[in-house]
Amino acid sequence: MLPFSRVAIIGLGLIGSSIARAVKDAMPGVALSGFDADADVRERARALRLCDDIADSAGAAVTDADFVILCVPVGAMAAAARDIAHDLPDDAVISDVGSSKGSVVAALREALPDAAIVPAHPVAGTERSGPEAGFAALFRNRWCILTPPEGTDPLAIERVGEFWKRLGAKIETMEPAHHDRVLAVTSHLPHLIAYTIVGTASDLEEVTSSDVIKYSAGGFRDFTRIAASDPTMWRDVFLSNREAVLDMLQRFSEDLSALQRAIRWGKGDELFDLFTRTRAVRRSIVEQGQDDAREDFGRSHE
Amino acid sequence: MLPFSRVAIIGLGLIGSSIARAVKDAMPGVALSGFDADADVRERARALRLCDDIADSAGAAVTDADFVILCVPVGAMAAAARDIAHDLPDDAVISDVGSSKGSVVAALREALPDAAIVPAHPVAGTERSGPEAGFAALFRNRWCILTPPEGTDPLAIERVGEFWKRLGAKIETMEPAHHDRVLAVTSHLPHLIAYTIVGTASDLEEVTSSDVIKYSAGGFRDFTRIAASDPTMWRDVFLSNREAVLDMLQRFSEDLSALQRAIRWGKGDELFDLFTRTRAVRRSIVEQGQDDAREDFGRSHE
Repeated sequence: MLPFSRVAIIGLGLIGSSIARAVKDAMPGVALSGFDADADVRERARALRLCDDIADSAGAAVTDADFVILCVPVGAMAAAARDIAHDLPDDAVISDVGSSKGSVVAALREALPDAAIVPAHPVAGTERSGPEAGFAALFRNRWCILTPPEGTDPLAIERVGEFWKRLGAKIETMEPAHHDRVLAVTSHLPHLIAYTIVGTASDLEEVTSSDVIKYSAGGFRDFTRIAASDPTMWRDVFLSNREAVLDMLQRFSEDLSALQRAIRWGKGDELFDLFTRTRAVRRSIVEQGQDDAREDFGRSHE
Repeated sequence: MLPFSRVAIIGLGLIGSSIARAVKDAMPGVALSGFDADADVRERARALRLCDDIADSAGAAVTDADFVILCVPVGAMAAAARDIAHDLPDDAVISDVGSSKGSVVAALREALPDAAIVPAHPVAGTERSGPEAGFAALFRNRWCILTPPEGTDPLAIERVGEFWKRLGAKIETMEPAHHDRVLAVTSHLPHLIAYTIVGTASDLEEVTSSDVIKYSAGGFRDFTRIAASDPTMWRDVFLSNREAVLDMLQRFSEDLSALQRAIRWGKGDELFDLFTRTRAVRRSIVEQGQDDAREDFGRSHE
């Protein structure tokens, strides 16, 4: 039995369009409606046949739905929730895919005080954006974290979990505040650092951009991939998860200063000890199937 | 005509063993000798048939060579050069593959004052180490930077360039000091930052290592790859290219502080502007064939 039969997706970028494709693959019986605030994206979504129906307002997209997923930048969640409030059926379950949860949970509860809200965060993505960038396998073997507020109907939580399992994801449940601390270190800080170093490299006077690009295979290119992620999405993530991000950044800066000092004073043993310890972390990630076991991410050398 | 006919490789790790394999593929007529300071590595290299002969001393490996490549960590270059000084034929050309060049050029000139020295840096590698990790295609379409000291015989430079072209590399020539500034930003700083963030994540109290590994697909896993690189090699790189690394690190820290401030004070426009600018850098790297054009480095999603 399907967890939901009429699903509405609000926001048809990388994640929303991947959900649409994955639902069509995994649950072909589901009726899919969609909406995007950008008229051009709606046109492209229609041309791609992402959903059975692409509505011209958020309200029209949700009016028959039993499950609504908000796939908009976290800074736009409150407005998106307000836009559907009037047309949302009483028994519909609401979810989202936001990368920070504390602020999103608060925004959804305020805009939709009586709805069954089961916030979710599929930890998956690529550096691309837009409805053309999505693909059905994006969530396969990735974790999807649910952060339901206390008192949420257990059946609603179970149905949302089952929905994500059908898309290939593994489910975990945690408090929004814990989610925001964990993701601050595993996702938000890495993006912040990648954006920074790519900016630093672009601003050098005596090393040209052409040098930076030419010799990027020495390590730099790895950082440019996540620094190519969607600017609006990431601006919102940093502003909405400010406290946790700033705390992690502070810890990182302290550790970087310690390493800087070790280099300045020629303390090779300190460097060697850290570099040996970090090697083991990579091993665990590969062993647990969270990254490609092939060297160099399996990049082609032909 | 082959640029060299009797090649000796000192150090049989990832780079040395990749050169051996690539020479066998591209220049099967070349006689290859090899040596590694680690007896266990010598045994494994013999079992892998990496070279025609694996000698039990560096001197014995070079005694007949017309080209000697030192493939040891940059901190071990001076000792490796001293070890071959007595047995090196007068007409042999010396090169290396070190990731920093200023200190290596000085070490080689001091140990081998009369030799033709053409230092080189193939900008290629993976996170793996040891003779089993090498492969012949490693240098294909990658840049190899030559940093010959002033007054080096132009024919020696040309022969070394031709050697690397036969292994599939593209050649560039520059001053050692310029090389060290360029690589500080495209390779050394990225590695330093990756090592730091993986250390920071491992040291958190309330977020467990298991959480960090589980949700690493949000961005963190990208950093763990280069933080799994060889600890000895990288300790030596940072200590030998100290000035340039510390300068780049200072610039990076300033830029990170600016971003920190923008997050603290909610300056979304500043974040958005930077994130838009960095996106273009990725595009250039892919356009110039320096990274996989497929999204997510072409990682498998099955």
